[in-house]
Amino acid sequence: MMTFSELLQKRRAIRDFEEKEVPLKIVEEILQEATLAPSASNNQPCRFVVVQCRKTIKALSDDSKANLLQDNADKKIKLNPDYVTFLQNENFNVFYNASCVIYIVGAKSVGSLDVDGALAASYIMFSAAARGLGTCWVALGANIRDPKLRAELGIPDSCRIVAPIILGYPKAISAPSERHAPDILRVITEAR
Amino acid sequence: MMTFSELLQKRRAIRDFEEKEVPLKIVEEILQEATLAPSASNNQPCRFVVVQCRKTIKALSDDSKANLLQDNADKKIKLNPDYVTFLQNENFNVFYNASCVIYIVGAKSVGSLDVDGALAASYIMFSAAARGLGTCWVALGANIRDPKLRAELGIPDSCRIVAPIILGYPKAISAPSERHAPDILRVITEAR
Repeated sequence: MMTFSELLQKRRAIRDFEEKEVPLKIVEEILQEATLAPSASNNQPCRFVVVQCRKTIKALSDDSKANLLQDNADKKIKLNPDYVTFLQNENFNVFYNASCVIYIVGAKSVGSLDVDGALAASYIMFSAAARGLGTCWVALGANIRDPKLRAELGIPDSCRIVAPIILGYPKAISAPSERHAPDILRVITEAR
Repeated sequence: MMTFSELLQKRRAIRDFEEKEVPLKIVEEILQEATLAPSASNNQPCRFVVVQCRKTIKALSDDSKANLLQDNADKKIKLNPDYVTFLQNENFNVFYNASCVIYIVGAKSVGSLDVDGALAASYIMFSAAARGLGTCWVALGANIRDPKLRAELGIPDSCRIVAPIILGYPKAISAPSERHAPDILRVITEAR
């Protein structure tokens, strides 16, 4: 049992995990809690894909890396040069050594999907942290286009990936990366 | 002290508050905790405006309502007809009777702003719930265009509003609105 302030300290971006796999039952508990996330007009548009196969995770990483590099070469996106170096390294897995990836997906037609997906992601990250698990939102792992892989994930053409979240038992929980003080533009009080 | 599961039950959309105002010190504590929210590349793009003046809150509600109705009439957006009826009622305040509104804003140039803002919003909502406070993300209160009001809020032209969050002491915490079971499209395991 921990306070929310303690939980906040435990919810870190984790990129190095124990070999031990997360039982599917625990993943399901986490997704059950994530259904409590708010969504625009309580529309609940988020759907989930759970990948616990290391071979598939590697294939997903490879496809996303190739697509990002292609988009960068085609000037559709502008990657940070440091990222390009990482993505060109064939030994670099965007999901690190995680044994579980949860994809949050939803219908392209939902205007608030990014926001609804991010709220569900925060629930997943906190729910995992409350269980001693680590997570990281790996945006670099979202660019899946290979039709075979998309079919394997069961993602219909009408849907897009909002967030890939890696999940596992953390080797260590580091201190939070540096944060600046809250940037409060203005406080408007009655007396003003 | 409560477990995260208990906190999840307390984080409800609250739209009816006690008259008692939230001390600014507590709002600042909540915004301090919100700085721990993850953001793309730890870019920390969120900025905040705290409005604790009921007259200003009413003016913000009126401006947002008028702009939404105008956009709907101009067919720039398509409002649910139920919302149109609400928005046409001059006694309806989109912020209900909240004595505090927190605007999460950020630079328009940040591609991940909606997602970063939603993650900060979830931190604010949980941090408030952990203190016995209630919140609600009021998307209908985001359409502020009156130059005088924008100047009063101190929002530069380079920034846009991601989320208005109302904050206060809840009159009651209702049970969660109905949620469907997590929609798991597929589970891919090693053995598959």
